[in-house]
Amino acid sequence: MRTFGKKTWVIAEGYIPSYGTGPEPEFTSHETACILNTSNRKAQVEITLFFTDKDPVGPYRVEVEAQRTKHLRFNDLEDPEPVPKDTDYACVIESDIPVVVQHTRLDSRQAENALLTTIAYSE
Amino acid sequence: MRTFGKKTWVIAEGYIPSYGTGPEPEFTSHETACILNTSNRKAQVEITLFFTDKDPVGPYRVEVEAQRTKHLRFNDLEDPEPVPKDTDYACVIESDIPVVVQHTRLDSRQAENALLTTIAYSE
Amino acid sequence: MRTFGKKTWVIAEGYIPSYGTGPEPEFTSHETACILNTSNRKAQVEITLFFTDKDPVGPYRVEVEAQRTKHLRFNDLEDPEPVPKDTDYACVIESDIPVVVQHTRLDSRQAENALLTTIAYSE
Amino acid sequence: MRTFGKKTWVIAEGYIPSYGTGPEPEFTSHETACILNTSNRKAQVEITLFFTDKDPVGPYRVEVEAQRTKHLRFNDLEDPEPVPKDTDYACVIESDIPVVVQHTRLDSRQAENALLTTIAYSE
Repeated sequence: MRTFGKKTWVIAEGYIPSYGTGPEPEFTSHETACILNTSNRKAQVEITLFFTDKDPVGPYRVEVEAQRTKHLRFNDLEDPEPVPKDTDYACVIESDIPVVVQHTRLDSRQAENALLTTIAYSE
Repeated sequence: MRTFGKKTWVIAEGYIPSYGTGPEPEFTSHETACILNTSNRKAQVEITLFFTDKDPVGPYRVEVEAQRTKHLRFNDLEDPEPVPKDTDYACVIESDIPVVVQHTRLDSRQAENALLTTIAYSE
Repeated sequence: MRTFGKKTWVIAEGYIPSYGTGPEPEFTSHETACILNTSNRKAQVEITLFFTDKDPVGPYRVEVEAQRTKHLRFNDLEDPEPVPKDTDYACVIESDIPVVVQHTRLDSRQAENALLTTIAYSE
Repeated sequence: MRTFGKKTWVIAEGYIPSYGTGPEPEFTSHETACILNTSNRKAQVEITLFFTDKDPVGPYRVEVEAQRTKHLRFNDLEDPEPVPKDTDYACVIESDIPVVVQHTRLDSRQAENALLTTIAYSE
């Protein structure tokens, strides 16, 4: 299959609530960057987080195997530091080969969950 | 009417919950690729699914008649194999003529439903 | 202000539930095409609806005044015929001058509402 | 880091409910334009609001510091005048340097919240 996508993606809206309801981990409030690598090569991905009132943090390094998708939970990022909860952030996702990125959040702060999604901004 | 759209569309985020609440089939948790074919010719569409830790599956073959829309439920795909539930996936949708694709999910795992949608990534 | 947008927009996913809960008309289940005309001229807009198993219907004709937004409820379209409920549809929105179109749905079939939105596909 | 984004963004769908439920300000119904400035210079941003039946209002002036994100609540805009509640609006966001804009709304009119998001239209 051909290689689809772009090398740079931006999600301007990020926010991980600090709590949730429902059985974990399925219903833990979380934010996800779904990355699809349709190529025949492993993708080296770097994520940089931006905040309201402090310097950017990163890069976080992630690999996406050839012809695989990775639904990356920001909750799971730990190096260089965990993503703070209850804090506005944004991110830039840069890959060495083209990928496609979609942003999704499950907000389970209340009894009934809310979901949002959008294809990220690419260039 | 002119033919609108693109021949390739990507949805990086896919996930069909294995259960739901509410009257079926209206409130069954489902994931949909809404495909619009504005042209005067039938569109031959091929869908390939990508996963986190196994090889891609497909193509699934679908036809969209001239000047018709098909709201394709991934739950209904069966050949070459059903789409697994509770499993992260992504998909590439390729058509022989331009179409427009929008991604929507109804999540009815809880008493109150959640909805999400986005125009897919095209190129 | 400059004129922003495109002349053709496509929403591939349409569905108006036939019932809802909560005070009307605020919480009536509805589907909206939010159209923004930033130009100094009135926009003449034509909407064509596409279905799964019957011919397209339209055009529906709508005007959007200069420097105004119109949040058009598909529920309110009546000529040439009302939009059927509980029926999958899609639409093409064509304007004689550039506009911007965003698609939103409020689904109030259950006690708690669900919302979705996406910028439409343009070309 | 390189400067990502565009100088003009459009959100065609705007609506701030006049009431909400849950602890404030976290669960106050609100509409947000999440702006990311990846550049090394401060961004001067001007927002113009468009309405259904009155002239545009603005510009509202906002600054986004270098390498920072601002999750701007329309509820907080006050000069030249507050954004009316329960009123359809749309907006154009113009920046002197490229930024990325994502539109998000939390609707807390009912016991359980609804969320929507989309990358804005850019050119």
